[in-house]
Amino acid sequence: MPRHAFDWIDAQAEARRRAGLVRAVRPRAHDDPLLDLYGNDYLGLARHPEVTAAAAGAARRWGAGATGSRLVSGSTGLHAELESELAAFCGFEAGLVLSSGYAANLAAVTALSDRGTLVVSDAGNHASLIDGCRLSRADVVVVPHADAKAAAKALDGFAGRALAVSDGVFSVDGDAADLPALAAVCRAHGAGLLVDDAHGLGVLGDGGRGSLHAAGLTGAADVVATVTLSKALGSQGGAVLGPVRVIEHLVNTARTFIEETALDPAAAGAALAALRLLRSEPERAAAAGEAAQRLHGGLTAAGLTAVRPDAAVVSVRAPSPEAAVAWAAACRGAGVAVGCFRPPSVPDGIARLRLTARADLTEQQVDTAVETVVRTAPAVPEPAPGRTGAPGARRAGPAR
Amino acid sequence: MPRHAFDWIDAQAEARRRAGLVRAVRPRAHDDPLLDLYGNDYLGLARHPEVTAAAAGAARRWGAGATGSRLVSGSTGLHAELESELAAFCGFEAGLVLSSGYAANLAAVTALSDRGTLVVSDAGNHASLIDGCRLSRADVVVVPHADAKAAAKALDGFAGRALAVSDGVFSVDGDAADLPALAAVCRAHGAGLLVDDAHGLGVLGDGGRGSLHAAGLTGAADVVATVTLSKALGSQGGAVLGPVRVIEHLVNTARTFIEETALDPAAAGAALAALRLLRSEPERAAAAGEAAQRLHGGLTAAGLTAVRPDAAVVSVRAPSPEAAVAWAAACRGAGVAVGCFRPPSVPDGIARLRLTARADLTEQQVDTAVETVVRTAPAVPEPAPGRTGAPGARRAGPAR
Ligand SMILES: Cc1ncc(COP(=O)(O)O)c(C=O)c1O
Ligand SMILES: Cc1ncc(COP(=O)(O)O)c(C=O)c1O
Repeated sequence: MPRHAFDWIDAQAEARRRAGLVRAVRPRAHDDPLLDLYGNDYLGLARHPEVTAAAAGAARRWGAGATGSRLVSGSTGLHAELESELAAFCGFEAGLVLSSGYAANLAAVTALSDRGTLVVSDAGNHASLIDGCRLSRADVVVVPHADAKAAAKALDGFAGRALAVSDGVFSVDGDAADLPALAAVCRAHGAGLLVDDAHGLGVLGDGGRGSLHAAGLTGAADVVATVTLSKALGSQGGAVLGPVRVIEHLVNTARTFIEETALDPAAAGAALAALRLLRSEPERAAAAGEAAQRLHGGLTAAGLTAVRPDAAVVSVRAPSPEAAVAWAAACRGAGVAVGCFRPPSVPDGIARLRLTARADLTEQQVDTAVETVVRTAPAVPEPAPGRTGAPGARRAGPAR
Repeated sequence: MPRHAFDWIDAQAEARRRAGLVRAVRPRAHDDPLLDLYGNDYLGLARHPEVTAAAAGAARRWGAGATGSRLVSGSTGLHAELESELAAFCGFEAGLVLSSGYAANLAAVTALSDRGTLVVSDAGNHASLIDGCRLSRADVVVVPHADAKAAAKALDGFAGRALAVSDGVFSVDGDAADLPALAAVCRAHGAGLLVDDAHGLGVLGDGGRGSLHAAGLTGAADVVATVTLSKALGSQGGAVLGPVRVIEHLVNTARTFIEETALDPAAAGAALAALRLLRSEPERAAAAGEAAQRLHGGLTAAGLTAVRPDAAVVSVRAPSPEAAVAWAAACRGAGVAVGCFRPPSVPDGIARLRLTARADLTEQQVDTAVETVVRTAPAVPEPAPGRTGAPGARRAGPAR
């Protein structure tokens, strides 16, 4: 019997220290002068005066909190307005707002599958989809990343209820799923398709309508999307978008929805204001993608190896977790904040710098970021002759 | 192979209709004139001008969203301030703020247990603790409600890592756990104790410091609390409170924490302002409990059967789900909004009206609520002679 209940924690902490995998919370100041290439505020709306004014106005009008579950006291007219405008914008019949994108994914996966359902899940999916699969008690088959053929193989010959689950844009490397191929596989097998478009909304598709809109799949009877309000819409919260009957089903069966307090009015109001800005200024969506392309172009021209971005995330591999931490720290020291992803937040165990582009970055800011990331890159052994990369350039880890 | 992937949904919807268990979202107006006995805003702070001003100010100063995970761009000085003041107020070494109480429970349970851990969970626990147990992959033993002896029996002879998990105040009936007894059992067995004090914070303990503070258990090396910022603090979000090493362990291992966007600044700012109000006006906590006692007293004096409230929730049993819905609708028609809990949101399958008291309810408002609930109660067969209850009074369902 252990003397103290939580003594086992110390051994795990020590192992993390030895592996260079310690994480700590580092609060930023409100006037932090760093060049921000680590936030997911893709359209630069989190601090837009109309968005913050909407947050402030909603708190004053509706209260600081929603006071209860959406099914008791928590549904306000503001939530309803956000749901209908968001669904209409993205091309779906109906929408349901939850307190986070994480909660939206838990709700969607668990409501659309249960014991006996076959769930086919991409190996690169976000933690919230994975947790949804675990909670659902479905039979889950994890298929190789971005491999529609593997999904088809997993579904072949299965006659029961089935659901394929995928990120629209994968959060670590920023690559997009091949949704037309995946949807074709689902249809051929009578399976539903659930796509988490957290990183596609606001960036991909006509005017930022997302990756399902780009693929012509919105509004279909067999397709459901989840989105987050916390990235391109600069706020907090998440939503499920789909056919009316699916949304009604979630209202009646999704535990995260039924048993959680509704999203705070300030966040709902801010997301609605951001959505309206995106609708009236559709060029924001393309600008985010263009900044990402420029970022990627600069990094690869200097010999670094980065995954070609399909949306606004640019991921650069690092030789080791320790090297990634040191690299990110060197960037920060030079005034540029970048993300640093290490195990267990990376499905393949490979550490990366993760840079996010924003619609409101100037070309000069992008170039400053490129220069800083390149200059601070860890030195690694020269590539063997004949390999790609500018001769003599420093390279950060193996190509993908 | 189903013709349409989601056709199976219709049969479930039809079964719900037949069972009288259909739920729908009913948005309220911002100037809704109903007397609110259905929200969890126990201290009446959600619309307090200092709280809504703090929400507005935080959105303006920090942005409408936090823009990323707490470990990337999402930690602000405001989150840190809230964490330290909340932990100090409740009597814990450290705190960690998440986007909801639901997320806090998922984070705490999964980080403090894993495959091989024995988790002893009260049958009345909130859905978020149950989902945390499922995600943890621990060996979960569900013990009868509020039964410390049963918890002891489940732990007897188990030599590995163990964790007991309980609501501090149970959300459906509003009864409190016997925390001193449960803590004694845990200590005798070297097990950790995790208490979800969503409904205790702000209402129980010295000045609203919660049910663990009332039991003298805060700050102990083997005790961890979760709280929500969405009830007594009138905002949105959740927190885990405990020893520093436990909080550091969560920062490094809790997926919901690592992989979700940080709580929006408006919500963090509002919760901090509410906490400061509670600290400077400690009489609010007692007032909420007194309103609940008056509510309970009035209902039972009129012959209704309600569970004696330990905090601010008063639960009245209904003869059936349909009767509960009709009863709640009749109250609403008479100007009083009450909660209506039906399967699957009630662990024992019994429908209830759920009334919540608030510190800012006047005695006259409480009496109006009592009068309305009593007057609209469904007629049920008279109790047999010799049973309790005022003679001739209408009774709503069996006693607990
Ligand atoms: C792909 C993906 N899905 C879902 C989420 C969760 O959304 P939220 O942060 O709003 O909970 C994230 C990141 O936060 C994400 O990257
Ligand atoms: C006991 C209990 N724990 C946790 C929660 C979840 O907290 P939140 O609504 O902040 O997600 C609730 C209700 O919402 C609850 O009643």
